[in-house]
Amino acid sequence: KINSERLWNTLHETCEWGADHRYGENPTDTGMARLTLNDDDACVRRWFAAEVQKLGCSLSVDQMGNMFARQSGRLNSAAPMIAMGSHLDTQPRGGRYDGILGIMAALEILRTMKESGFQTNYDVGVVNWTNEEGARFPKSMCSSGVWAGAIPIEKAWDLRDIHDPNVTLRSELERHGYLGDIACSSDPATGYPLGAHFELHIEQGPILPGNNRSIGVVQGAQGYRWLTMTVHGKDAHTGTTPFSARQDPLLASSRMIAASHDIAKRHDALASTGIIRVPSNASTNTVSSQVTFTLDIRHPQDSVVHAVQDECLKAFEAIALQDGKGVSFDWTLDTDSPAVKFDENCVASIQAAADGLVGREKSMLLTSGAGHDTVYTSKHCPSAMIFVPCLDGVSHHPTEYCSPQDCALGTQALLEAVVHYDQF
Amino acid sequence: KINSERLWNTLHETCEWGADHRYGENPTDTGMARLTLNDDDACVRRWFAAEVQKLGCSLSVDQMGNMFARQSGRLNSAAPMIAMGSHLDTQPRGGRYDGILGIMAALEILRTMKESGFQTNYDVGVVNWTNEEGARFPKSMCSSGVWAGAIPIEKAWDLRDIHDPNVTLRSELERHGYLGDIACSSDPATGYPLGAHFELHIEQGPILPGNNRSIGVVQGAQGYRWLTMTVHGKDAHTGTTPFSARQDPLLASSRMIAASHDIAKRHDALASTGIIRVPSNASTNTVSSQVTFTLDIRHPQDSVVHAVQDECLKAFEAIALQDGKGVSFDWTLDTDSPAVKFDENCVASIQAAADGLVGREKSMLLTSGAGHDTVYTSKHCPSAMIFVPCLDGVSHHPTEYCSPQDCALGTQALLEAVVHYDQF
Ligand SMILES: NC(=O)NCCC(=O)O
Ligand SMILES: NC(=O)NCCC(=O)O
Repeated sequence: KINSERLWNTLHETCEWGADHRYGENPTDTGMARLTLNDDDACVRRWFAAEVQKLGCSLSVDQMGNMFARQSGRLNSAAPMIAMGSHLDTQPRGGRYDGILGIMAALEILRTMKESGFQTNYDVGVVNWTNEEGARFPKSMCSSGVWAGAIPIEKAWDLRDIHDPNVTLRSELERHGYLGDIACSSDPATGYPLGAHFELHIEQGPILPGNNRSIGVVQGAQGYRWLTMTVHGKDAHTGTTPFSARQDPLLASSRMIAASHDIAKRHDALASTGIIRVPSNASTNTVSSQVTFTLDIRHPQDSVVHAVQDECLKAFEAIALQDGKGVSFDWTLDTDSPAVKFDENCVASIQAAADGLVGREKSMLLTSGAGHDTVYTSKHCPSAMIFVPCLDGVSHHPTEYCSPQDCALGTQALLEAVVHYDQF
Repeated sequence: KINSERLWNTLHETCEWGADHRYGENPTDTGMARLTLNDDDACVRRWFAAEVQKLGCSLSVDQMGNMFARQSGRLNSAAPMIAMGSHLDTQPRGGRYDGILGIMAALEILRTMKESGFQTNYDVGVVNWTNEEGARFPKSMCSSGVWAGAIPIEKAWDLRDIHDPNVTLRSELERHGYLGDIACSSDPATGYPLGAHFELHIEQGPILPGNNRSIGVVQGAQGYRWLTMTVHGKDAHTGTTPFSARQDPLLASSRMIAASHDIAKRHDALASTGIIRVPSNASTNTVSSQVTFTLDIRHPQDSVVHAVQDECLKAFEAIALQDGKGVSFDWTLDTDSPAVKFDENCVASIQAAADGLVGREKSMLLTSGAGHDTVYTSKHCPSAMIFVPCLDGVSHHPTEYCSPQDCALGTQALLEAVVHYDQF
């Protein structure tokens, strides 16, 4: 049985590195700004390395700075370890649980095993994946992506700090001594293969709290595609130009955003626009010459993601002709993350743990709405995830909150799932 | 008869001060960036002062830097002068005709009168109004507004350079020696009253070229109101938050922008959004917490402007409740410029000039879509405007173009209108 107080205290003590955005009076009433490989991230990494070594783990660091802590199993088997992984980096206005809970839970599990003299059959361990958020170096799930062979390491190394193009991910790895010598790969010959990957994470959405459930058994992740649309029109004076003579990209973009929502809704899918930009010299009395906006389309089935995209593009073509003299548009595909189904045996181990801890009334099968490192690991080893609820589904926000009870319950479920899988 | 070559050459020679945004190979294939009271604007002002003094004009500068050049009339009357006014400042990506043509035409008319020994009955002259564009110091038709008593001078003086809040309009007037000692007012006791105000300007729209007309007899200006809408929602992850749980201000804003267009269209009015902004830390996979956008509503009748605004706000209230958990919004009124009707006698003088020059088939009555300094002068002296076509109606853009023939025709019409009015 894990020590829930130790878990809670350790999590919040280590959040001193990167605490920011105070919103209340309690010591822990802050969010986090622990951006990948900044000085605070380097501090929490060094602390993590020391803690796992104190527990007798061996520690390996690969060429993306991914940290692998390994506890030997009873059988002294050469098989790759069963990993519990997540990330210690945060969003610039992030919270204290996203990623961090997964690492702290894994550490608490190793501490509990050590304390109680419990040994797994096979090696178990923790992975801290570098730059999951992609907030400082703009590629999310960056280093699990390299590990899985989905992102070329040169591309990842060359990612630039979004505020300082002179700083690369690689230069920051070097500065902090986290450019390891193991290949970032699942290849047993050169890299660090894993026997399985389990990740505890906050849900970051409203489904668990809305259904009054405390454990989500995550059976996969939905597919998503990110498009950037650019709509081209023509500057025109808003006072002197009749509607019939206009090519108004902002009017067209507005109709496109509304249409994409309505199309996705009909498919029970999601389509969202987070960013829209007009040129910096836009003015109240000028029709803008160009507008760009993002489109994020998601659904658990890839075929639906594609159907929504196709229907949106068709609708956009009609909208482009609709007002005045019409506009033109083009688009780029920025991210293509197909749907994944997690490993049946890993899911079964999590379900068994949930059944024992809270029963079927308090757990539920879920598909992750967001991408996680486990999406990448699942391509190279059996993988699955556990979700616990966060307050009102709020995440990527300083006030993100997961109660001590839910943190402890998720950690206990992770422990039991790993033990279950180890025995299986 | 004015000298069209001298007009054309003078205009383009003086556009050396502030030429920018080259788009073609001819020497004059550039736009302009002669922002109010920058060094180029100071140069062209000093040149203008020297030119009118060479012609024997007296020059007065008021406390807003408005420049009044005055040629005595035959009758030596103490009556206020008949003014030909416009502006020498430009947009940051403006053209060579907007405002500049009106001043150069007026100067060419004084030169022609001098050359041919022609004297008007009453004093005539030129006014260069400061900061018509409101591009550097953000209030358009700023100094004619102060002259007309519609804008308090302290407010105008305190306007800040949009890129450097340490620089005010007043500090720039002082730096260049253009903080005159005459009150900026139409009051005969302290200020500089005008007997009439005629302004030649490019149309900045497609109506004259679209109807194959070369002179627009402008009988008034439409009313307009500028609103800034702020829509409040809640940050949410685009992958994990169902539509039903969202408060999405960008989706709501998109529906509002489309609705405002459709409402204005039904009223034969205009409603336009030039600027939309999401927070700078917006991201593709986060529903934005807040969106602001501008709304510019116009119609020749104030009652229609108000009806469109009321109908938009009603529609926005319904839209705010439409998706997910709904959003809230508030708004500010940034500009309220009621419709104006120009003086009948001034309009008649322009119509007489147009009839003589091109006949009724090539001229037309128009209502100005945009605001101009004449909108303000019309509140304190008989006023009207002449429009000439600009290519494709393009304005506030480097490629803005008015042909030498149209520049000359407009100037000749201005001359004849002023002479007609002087005799009447
Ligand atoms: N968990 C998370 O926010 N991942 C980033 C990629 C996504 O938007 O799903
Ligand atoms: N001519 C001009 O652009 N005036 C500015 C005010 C307006 O938008 O009408």
